[in-house]
Amino acid sequence: LRGLLVERGRVAYREDLPRPAPRPGETRVRVLCAGVCATDLALVRGYMDFAGVPGHEFCGVALDGPLAGRRVVGEINAACGDCGECRAGRRRHCERRTVLGILGRSGAFAEELALPSANLHAVPDAVSTDAATFCEPLAAAFRIVEDVELAPGMRALVAGDGRLGLLCARVLVLSGLDVTVTGRHPERAALVLGARYEEGLLDGAPRQKFDLAVDATGDPAALPRVLGRVRPCGTLVLKTTTERPTTLDLAPLVVDEIRLVGSRCGPFEPALDALAQGRIDVESLVCERYALDEGERALERAARAGTLKVLIEVEP
Amino acid sequence: LRGLLVERGRVAYREDLPRPAPRPGETRVRVLCAGVCATDLALVRGYMDFAGVPGHEFCGVALDGPLAGRRVVGEINAACGDCGECRAGRRRHCERRTVLGILGRSGAFAEELALPSANLHAVPDAVSTDAATFCEPLAAAFRIVEDVELAPGMRALVAGDGRLGLLCARVLVLSGLDVTVTGRHPERAALVLGARYEEGLLDGAPRQKFDLAVDATGDPAALPRVLGRVRPCGTLVLKTTTERPTTLDLAPLVVDEIRLVGSRCGPFEPALDALAQGRIDVESLVCERYALDEGERALERAARAGTLKVLIEVEP
Repeated sequence: LRGLLVERGRVAYREDLPRPAPRPGETRVRVLCAGVCATDLALVRGYMDFAGVPGHEFCGVALDGPLAGRRVVGEINAACGDCGECRAGRRRHCERRTVLGILGRSGAFAEELALPSANLHAVPDAVSTDAATFCEPLAAAFRIVEDVELAPGMRALVAGDGRLGLLCARVLVLSGLDVTVTGRHPERAALVLGARYEEGLLDGAPRQKFDLAVDATGDPAALPRVLGRVRPCGTLVLKTTTERPTTLDLAPLVVDEIRLVGSRCGPFEPALDALAQGRIDVESLVCERYALDEGERALERAARAGTLKVLIEVEP
Repeated sequence: LRGLLVERGRVAYREDLPRPAPRPGETRVRVLCAGVCATDLALVRGYMDFAGVPGHEFCGVALDGPLAGRRVVGEINAACGDCGECRAGRRRHCERRTVLGILGRSGAFAEELALPSANLHAVPDAVSTDAATFCEPLAAAFRIVEDVELAPGMRALVAGDGRLGLLCARVLVLSGLDVTVTGRHPERAALVLGARYEEGLLDGAPRQKFDLAVDATGDPAALPRVLGRVRPCGTLVLKTTTERPTTLDLAPLVVDEIRLVGSRCGPFEPALDALAQGRIDVESLVCERYALDEGERALERAARAGTLKVLIEVEP
């Protein structure tokens, strides 16, 4: 099997990978297209001591199972169905979970993957394969809608104008919020679609505060500054995960009674619906495409500052 | 006026303090009894560059205003009524607030104080002056009931068996939760009333996790360990404020999608009701009483490790 393999902090294109062995109840998927995410880059650098095939954003074709022959996208957490978390209805937090391309399960930067059939969703014809590849990070952005009680007109700040930040901004705009994006790439002002772009909102100067802030900076050192932009009793959704601990003065969080909400994976249904109905554009975020055998270059490109979404066209 | 004055990191008993000058709409209060809180000790050590009369937990007698002649307790945040926060209904977070004994307003460790009449609550006859003095910290514990959607049977951990931790545990027990207290004083197991006491729950060993945790340790270094006791999608209410920043690995917060909720002052009504109906005992937390002219010793005593509530009987 052709694909990208991470071993000892290096990634290499290989043609001799073992074919993923589906367990009972799982479907084999032929990958069409995969997206590169900041987590993939962290895994290559050694996050979670990862070794294996990375990649968890994909659109493919089911080779067997209930959706055989259909284009599919897949939720990345494979649950046991039996532990305390699963029984409590928190399957994405299954204590024995494997996670596609992240934890104990070969990922999407290869010709084939396997996932529990229950994790797969058929892709409506109206959604292109490129757009469907964004379903996983878009679902993560839709997690904010579950995390926080949103009301039209709420003032929201999205800190970070990278791939995930722009998706979060689009979801918040769709929810009727008054959205401001701040980041390091003012040239992306044209990409915030329905939101406002303001430079330097994290510089510490006293300014009006926001009901809601989303930290999608990818930089743990930014958190105290994002916190400084949240009004009393407001909410900060934390999307940034990193390998490094951060130092934080917690007194303002207590004095201003702010809620800090960790947020990871989200629901696929609203993401697919929004794509099918053309209510969220994602294709403008594609900045470059590579073939699978150019995957090493794809990851290098994605790691360069200022890169939006890099796609790997596994089966062009 | 007799009272305690903090200046340049020292506290002194004085008999020449100026009488607090009530502003329009404020009531003068003769203080009967005042409680010493960890915040008072931090202010003496220099927190917020405090200078003035500290003390914000009290029961007194209104000398004028709508409640003249009645025993009263008082909410400590005096709001302007006119700023963005006040107009949004968050008067406790008024941008121009003064805070009794903490910020811009002389406190309760003196014979007299002044507060907006709207901040005062009459104390029912069934509530002793000692018990009423606990109304402010008990209200802070009741803030958790506003912060988090509680359900009977939820498993809660209170980290910290100090004054505030024990009050928080009592409020959670009253709300029907299954409460465990952990701390440094196993001899307080008899004080957790309806909760269970377990030693060493923050030692990092893998153990069952809690739906809700309250950090009332007073130690910012404890937060990562308290976080480790919260189940995925659970809530951690942070009551600990300190002068020092803390270093935190935020990845577990994001991966486990935990909510970290800063929590400060709370509602007086449920606190007074619970005291009036005898549903929460507070008097067992009194460990020592001092007269106002022994106030310096009272603060020294309260700062000693393992001290529960120290009361200053201003007018015995």
